[in-house]
This record gives sequence, C-alpha cells and structure tokens, in this order.
Amino acid sequence: MARYSIGVDLGGTNLRAAVIDETGALIDRVEGRTNLAAGPEAVMDDIARSILELRGRCGGQLAGIGVAVPGIIEMQKGVVRESPNLPGFCDIPVRDEIERRIQAPVHLENDANAAALGEKWAGAGRAVDDLVLLTLGTGIGGGIIYGGKILHGFVGMAGELGHIQVVPNGNPCACGGHGCLEKHASATAVTLMARLLGLGENLTSEQVYHLARDGNAHARVVFATMGKALGVAIADLVNIFNFPLYLLSGGVLAAWEFFAPAMFEEVRRSSYVFRNSDTRIGKAELGKDAGLYGAARLPLTA
Amino acid sequence: MARYSIGVDLGGTNLRAAVIDETGALIDRVEGRTNLAAGPEAVMDDIARSILELRGRCGGQLAGIGVAVPGIIEMQKGVVRESPNLPGFCDIPVRDEIERRIQAPVHLENDANAAALGEKWAGAGRAVDDLVLLTLGTGIGGGIIYGGKILHGFVGMAGELGHIQVVPNGNPCACGGHGCLEKHASATAVTLMARLLGLGENLTSEQVYHLARDGNAHARVVFATMGKALGVAIADLVNIFNFPLYLLSGGVLAAWEFFAPAMFEEVRRSSYVFRNSDTRIGKAELGKDAGLYGAARLPLTA
Repeated sequence: MARYSIGVDLGGTNLRAAVIDETGALIDRVEGRTNLAAGPEAVMDDIARSILELRGRCGGQLAGIGVAVPGIIEMQKGVVRESPNLPGFCDIPVRDEIERRIQAPVHLENDANAAALGEKWAGAGRAVDDLVLLTLGTGIGGGIIYGGKILHGFVGMAGELGHIQVVPNGNPCACGGHGCLEKHASATAVTLMARLLGLGENLTSEQVYHLARDGNAHARVVFATMGKALGVAIADLVNIFNFPLYLLSGGVLAAWEFFAPAMFEEVRRSSYVFRNSDTRIGKAELGKDAGLYGAARLPLTA
Repeated sequence: MARYSIGVDLGGTNLRAAVIDETGALIDRVEGRTNLAAGPEAVMDDIARSILELRGRCGGQLAGIGVAVPGIIEMQKGVVRESPNLPGFCDIPVRDEIERRIQAPVHLENDANAAALGEKWAGAGRAVDDLVLLTLGTGIGGGIIYGGKILHGFVGMAGELGHIQVVPNGNPCACGGHGCLEKHASATAVTLMARLLGLGENLTSEQVYHLARDGNAHARVVFATMGKALGVAIADLVNIFNFPLYLLSGGVLAAWEFFAPAMFEEVRRSSYVFRNSDTRIGKAELGKDAGLYGAARLPLTA
C-alpha cells in the first residue's frame, strides 16, 4: 500500500484510531471506549495499543502518527495542560508518553484544530487554503487554517472561538467571561434554552430539533436564538479574517434549517465584508471523523 | 546611501511621503495637504510628484514604492473600492494610475495594515512575528501581522476590527451592524459619549481627556466605558489568535491612564488565554508615521 499515517482521536467518550493514506483515503480503523476511570496512564496504554495494532495490520511505510486531544495543549512541550472532557489529564506529557510506548515520533494537536485540518485535507475545505471551523458540541471549539496550516498562536492556544463574546453580561462561563458563544449556541445551550421555555428538563439538542420539526414554536425560538448568536460570532470572524470559508460541525447541524436563517440574517446585517465578498458558510463533511483525518495529516504537513 | 524604498501615506487630511532605508531608518520626507477638492486625478498627480521629488533628491538604489490608503482595497487589482476618508475615491485604480505617472511598480495597501507592518518592522512590534494593531481614530482600523506579513484574507478585506460587535443592539453603524467597536471606542465615540453626559457639544477626545485629568467624573466614565468596549474586542482577538502582542495607536492613546484599567479588567476577566499566556497589550511607537514605514516596507517583503 501507499505511504500512510495513523491518526488518533482521543475523545471524552470514544477512543478511535485510523490508517489514512497520503491521498486522504481511510484504509483501516479501530474504535473503543475511552477508559477514563482507569486514569491517564491506562488511556495512553490503550492509545499505544491501538496504534501498534493498526501498524501491525498495515505494515508498509508509516509516515507518522498524530493524536488529537480535546483541551488546552502546550504545543512545544506536547503537554495536555487541562481538558474539561478528559478529567485527570492535567499537565500530562501525552506526546512523550505515547512516543515512549510506541518508539516513534508523535504529533499532538487540539481536537478542533485537527478537525479543521481534516476538513481542509479531505472534507468540505478541500478547495481552499484558508478556513475557520466551529465545532458545535457540549462546548464550542474552533480551528483556524491559514495557508493550509493550523494557526496556533504563540503558545498553541489560538482558536478559542467558543469564547468569543456574543452577549455581554450574558450567561456566565467557566472561562471567567460572560455571554461566550458556547453558552449561547452549543448543544448545551440548546438544552438550556429548551428548559427555560418549559420544553423539558434535559432534552438533547436532537430532541429539541424534533420538536421544532413538529412545529413547536418554542423549539423554533430556541434555534433562532442560537442561530443569531452564531451569526454574531461568524460576522466577527468574517470581518477579522475575510477567509473564503467558514464551516460548522457537530450534531446540532441536523437543525440547520431552523438556525441557519437567523444566522445568515445576522451575518449579512453585521458584516460588510460578507456582503461584499463571495464568502461561504457551510456544513463540514467528515462528521466525527474530521479529527481522525486531521490527526493523520499532522505528520504529513509538519 | 543604502538601498531604500519610498512610502506614501495618503490620508484624508495630509499627504506624506518618506524615504526609508533597508534598516528602517527614515532618511528624507515631504508632506502636504491632501487636495481632495481637486479630485482623485489631482491627488494622484500630487502623490507622483512627491515620489519623483524624493527619488530625485536621493538618487541611488530605489527598491520600490508603497502607498497606504484608508479604505477598502481590492488587492489583486490595486483598486480603491471605497474610502469614507477620501470622498471621490470610489473604484479608482490607484496602483495603475500612480505606476503610469512614475513609470515604476507600486504596492498598494490599506492604511491600518500598513501601520501594523510598520510597527512590526520599525516600531513596538520589532521583537515579534505576530501582532494585531488597532488604530483608534475617527473610526477604528485594524491590521493583522502573521509570520511577519500582513494577513489579507482572500479579497484583501481582512482586519476590519472596528466592526467587531461589542454591544449587541448598540449604536448603529454605517456598515449595517450595531454596537461595532468603532461606535463605542473610537475618538468619535468619546466625543459622542461626552455630549451625552453634557460635557460639551463637540469636544475633541483630547479635550475630554483634559477634563478627565482635571478630575471630571463624567469624563472618566467616558473613558472607562470606552476601555471596557475595547477590552471586549481585544479579549475576542486574544482568544482567536493567541498572538504575543496587541498594539493600540491613535490620539486617544493620550488617555491611556483613564481607559486602560477598564480595558485590562475586561480582557483579564473574559480571556482565559490572556490569563494563561504572557500576552502584551501596549502602545504603538511610530505614531502617525507607522503607515509611512509600513508602506515603505511593502516592496521589501513582497
């Protein structure tokens, strides 16, 4: 087979790894639960085992290994500083620990950055060199691709797009701010708004979507409100970057028909740059696999 | 003398040009009024005359010519699409028109982008490769330097930082948005707030600063309000870019002592990235000459 790399996506729930060749074709994969209860050492053992298993099955020419991790990463040191989704991963030298286990170099990356790179390589961003990806999940992550590469900032903390302030004095956020995008446009925010409007105590964003589809006016207000918040942040990003493409990913995308109109209305109203350039705002294509593709791409672009 | 380039800064009031050598030393300069009443053709004649005069005086090895212009520029075509500060400059092919007059290649650039590049080359940003500059004037302009170069976006409209939304449903802006940064933190916004608080009908931001210095409580509220708005936008920028340096320029900087505390308080509160990295927010150094330096730098980095 062609030269390939292995991408690992370490999520709070699932641990997944895949073999992807240089053309961006996914060749083989393994998937399991992330055993957080067993602690970081055991999780890193599992990562190493997944990599070695795939390498054993594929043989051939391994170009490198990339690992995508949710949370704040110190890029130069390869350390996961903290991760709300991976309790226990606090100041853990994940890169060196995995390298030690598999005796090969590892590239560590934030999961949203990796997803953005994956979309640029093999997804909805193939045709452009510059894009911004917003991942709408429990929180909101962001990845910025400029000139085909991830924009990291000087300690690797760039792309914290979930903390763009869209509602001053809005909902408080654990980051210390108020009215952060992720408090008003994530799946969690959809659940929260649905509760406020009496739709149910702990509806998933999918359930709120089903209500909207069935004609429930309150559920539609939830998505219109979420879409407007998203529009405020995207208008800012368009005015700042003037990139050709802004992508959205995450389960909430299913409700596109209910939040996109308010989102586009706000972006169109608030961004002169949007109105005067051929800027696209669209759906990511790779779904949950974006991080796997991006992680696999890391050793090929480094 | 050493190899040099000529930078031109075409402002709404003044037209300035300077000879700057490769080490960033300003060697010679000419300055006059921008004769907008005479129309774009006459202004471009004046620009060409300034360039030819400086070239005649300096002789030697001219590396190139850069021209900084306020307003929206189509980079590839070298066209000034529109400019609130240069009435009459609407879809004017400034680059080609000046090239035709002086028979030499010209680099055209937005004035805030040029100022950011100037600060990176010869000002407060010398030590870094990545920075954001906010120019606080009648409006607010922005320039983003990444890897030592201007980030343009795909049609050259990146860096419209004055239109980051800091107060949803805030003051309306001619861009179509509401609560844009420049409607709440520019010199114009300072004048507006001073009027609202009964300090005077058309005070300059400098006069409002003098009132604040004399202990006027309302004038201090004006700058605290302006500082907080600035803080919201800078927190967003820090979360997005994680660059090491954010610079402010413009006459309002004189009031630093009165707006900076509220600005820093807001950034510290709202940006996890700021609190966890050695990010600097400081004053630009080149004052009104930043655009001249940046314009002169253009042919040296192209």
